[in-house]
Amino acid sequence: MTEKLTPAQLESALRDIGARHYHNLHPFHKMLHSGACTREQVQAWALNRYYYQASIPRKDAVLLARLPDAASRRAWRQRLVDHDGEREGDGGIARWLRLAEGVGLDAAYVESTAGILPATRFAVDAYVTFVRERSLLEAVASSLTEMFSPTIIAERVTGMLANYDFVSKDTLVYFNARLHQAPRDADFALDYVKTHARTREEQNLVLAALRFKCDVLWAQVDALYSAYVVPGMVPHGVFLAPQADVALAS
Amino acid sequence: MTEKLTPAQLESALRDIGARHYHNLHPFHKMLHSGACTREQVQAWALNRYYYQASIPRKDAVLLARLPDAASRRAWRQRLVDHDGEREGDGGIARWLRLAEGVGLDAAYVESTAGILPATRFAVDAYVTFVRERSLLEAVASSLTEMFSPTIIAERVTGMLANYDFVSKDTLVYFNARLHQAPRDADFALDYVKTHARTREEQNLVLAALRFKCDVLWAQVDALYSAYVVPGMVPHGVFLAPQADVALAS
Repeated sequence: MTEKLTPAQLESALRDIGARHYHNLHPFHKMLHSGACTREQVQAWALNRYYYQASIPRKDAVLLARLPDAASRRAWRQRLVDHDGEREGDGGIARWLRLAEGVGLDAAYVESTAGILPATRFAVDAYVTFVRERSLLEAVASSLTEMFSPTIIAERVTGMLANYDFVSKDTLVYFNARLHQAPRDADFALDYVKTHARTREEQNLVLAALRFKCDVLWAQVDALYSAYVVPGMVPHGVFLAPQADVALAS
Repeated sequence: MTEKLTPAQLESALRDIGARHYHNLHPFHKMLHSGACTREQVQAWALNRYYYQASIPRKDAVLLARLPDAASRRAWRQRLVDHDGEREGDGGIARWLRLAEGVGLDAAYVESTAGILPATRFAVDAYVTFVRERSLLEAVASSLTEMFSPTIIAERVTGMLANYDFVSKDTLVYFNARLHQAPRDADFALDYVKTHARTREEQNLVLAALRFKCDVLWAQVDALYSAYVVPGMVPHGVFLAPQADVALAS
């Protein structure tokens, strides 16, 4: 099909990518939410995901630097505020650190990112590079996974609170703010791509950018699965829980 | 330890990284060489590895562009000749395509890289980015995995010829040239880092660069293992053999 899509058709094609490729479909997330993860696996998830969280404001700053008008830059700037906060201890990165500490990790170790999987670093850095090197339209489109995040957050918070006695509401406070931030950001980005993708070719680039971003998220949980679920596959030098694994499935 | 290493100590520390982190130690390579892979797994290896092969001259061009003197550039230029060849059908990339066709893949499909794992792309692109963004010393040091490649090539060629009836000497011709090219390249790079790492701090950067590169190679076979050995884990849209898997272990 090569005809230009209507804005509604474009949105529908974007949602279809989410329905087939978003990482809520990955076996690791099913384990995480259902209580089938060991404490070590939950820790590995929190530790590796920290690198993603901590890289998001770098990605957003790269994108902000490319936006040509003050209104768009102001809108995008809110993302920096959300992640980096207004003061020490505030913002999404600090809240993710609280989550990591809540599941038993040392904050300084998490912040050092010394124990993350190389595959995590490669996937996250690929995202930052994509936003720097591709067109602005594709860079904005790659953020559109936020269209799908309220669903996974709802599953995650409910599932993790019900299934792990070492996870509390306070540990998961990161997700509270995301439930209203993500849809607001997604609305802006969705409007942007509907307006700025002026040809079918550009619409295809938008769709490919979202697919790329789904791959970035998928590769991160895939690496966790490969290292921490498949026996004997943890690469040298990355995080291992200090004690023997304890299965904490409910 | 913070004292500067002698050149011999630096080389010994580099060889120690290889002995512990080079990808010949990965379970997927043990399977590949021992005949335990299915034809689909061998194809997935050839397909994904093509992206690495095809990216090497881009990496070498980035590095060459940073070398300040004609003599070093001439030495490094030989790598471009080795991989891209002197004419159509010549060079390492063309020979890798022959390998891919030899194990039953369509050359145009392989060249498109449409079926590779996202994790392969992320790891390989991380290598090119590293060579562009880090110091020249680290960029050169990241090539030092070639110190270890003759061993894995010898294991691979012997093992694959003995254990797969769909693999012929002609299929593996890529590796013939590598057996003398890699040591020549490694000697140059090893001399370079011995000469140019003037402090212990710089020597540590050299060691970290080699470790990074081992991670790049390891992550690629790890992704193959996760997708094609662990059941049910092939991500959407990547290569699957057209027929049912046939175990071809001897």
